[in-house]
Order: sequence, then C-alpha cells, then structure tokens
Amino acid sequence: MADCLFCNMASGDIPVERVAENDHAFAIRDINPRAPVHALVIPREHIADAREIDAGHADMLAGLFTLASQVGRAEGVHESGYRLSFNVGDDAGMTIHHLHLHLVGGRRLGHEG
Amino acid sequence: MADCLFCNMASGDIPVERVAENDHAFAIRDINPRAPVHALVIPREHIADAREIDAGHADMLAGLFTLASQVGRAEGVHESGYRLSFNVGDDAGMTIHHLHLHLVGGRRLGHEG
Repeated sequence: MADCLFCNMASGDIPVERVAENDHAFAIRDINPRAPVHALVIPREHIADAREIDAGHADMLAGLFTLASQVGRAEGVHESGYRLSFNVGDDAGMTIHHLHLHLVGGRRLGHEG
Repeated sequence: MADCLFCNMASGDIPVERVAENDHAFAIRDINPRAPVHALVIPREHIADAREIDAGHADMLAGLFTLASQVGRAEGVHESGYRLSFNVGDDAGMTIHHLHLHLVGGRRLGHEG
C-alpha cells in the first residue's frame, strides 16, 4: 500500500534500522519506547490488524513469532521475560493500520492493559 | 502433560465453560479479569510459552488468532478494540507454563505494560 508507513519500510522506500528480519517479517525499535526494551515486529505483507488474520496467514505468523523470539534474545530479555502484544482498534490505542507486534521488556511489567 | 492446568482443561479432565473453540484452541474467561472483557485463548497442544514457537506451529497460530477474533466478536469488543498479549517469563508475570493469549478490552486500555 503506497501510503502505508510499514509497507514503505518493508520495501526499503523508507530506510530504518532493523534489529532483525526473516522472510516473513522485520523488527525495528519503537521510536517512543514505553519500556527499556520496546521493539516492533512487523510482517512484510500488509494486514490491517489482528482481526483480519485467517488460515492463509499461518506461515506469516510462525515467521513473526520466531522473529520475536530472536529479537528477545538480541535485546537481552530472553531470560528475564517480555510481553508480546497486538493492539486492535481504538480502545487499544492502535494508530498504524498495518499489523505489528509490540515486544516490551527490560523491567517488571504491569498488567496487560 | 498430566500436571498442567490448561492441558487438563483441553482434555476435559478439568471442566470449564468455553467461550468458543476450534480444532487448534479453546477460549475461557480469566478468573481474575483485569478489564470488563478478559478472555484467555489457549492452544490444545502443550507449548510452554512464546519463546518455544517454531515453524511447526504455523497452523496452531492461525487457529489461535482466528479464534481470538471470534472471541472479540462474541464478547462485543470487535468494533471498540482490544489487546492480544502473550506474557513471557517473570518480568511479564507469567504464571502458567502453557502458552495462552490474553484478550483484554471493554474499556480504554493503558500502555502495553
């Protein structure tokens, strides 16, 4: 999608430092981190949000979550723990309409929301 | 796993009201809800936590997230929004070592942790 920030990062049209990547997804650091570690794991394919996930996304999801685990190791929180979250819609404060997984950690986290 | 709460729910050995289910997962309400809507979406297969996800879990993940979307509709938060979270390890307060997805919504949520 031409006007989608994460599609433009995926294509390379908008350059961004990638923490890690694989065939299905890439990971960047959040520009407004809410914890010592705060990365975003983003599928290359445009999917608006988690409500749109269907059976055809199985391989993408496996790629996304294996990359998240790799990011947890790279960012030093594999042992201490972290949270992986998809925000869906207004009540969760979703602002970019391209699916992305938040990985937050590096301190004791509060509740899920 | 004989001593795993969620394995025993999956098998039916521990009866529990299910909000929804499919071939890969079942959903229950959290007994200690932290928002007006708080469900857990649980794979039937025993996986300790999200760090263990690999390529062989692709179909399970698609089943888990399509069930989560169905639960969001059933619980009345499809339009208003919600958060889907995996807690991993101590910093996220993980207490049951069988993968489960928290679905929280029904009010404006705070940050991811």
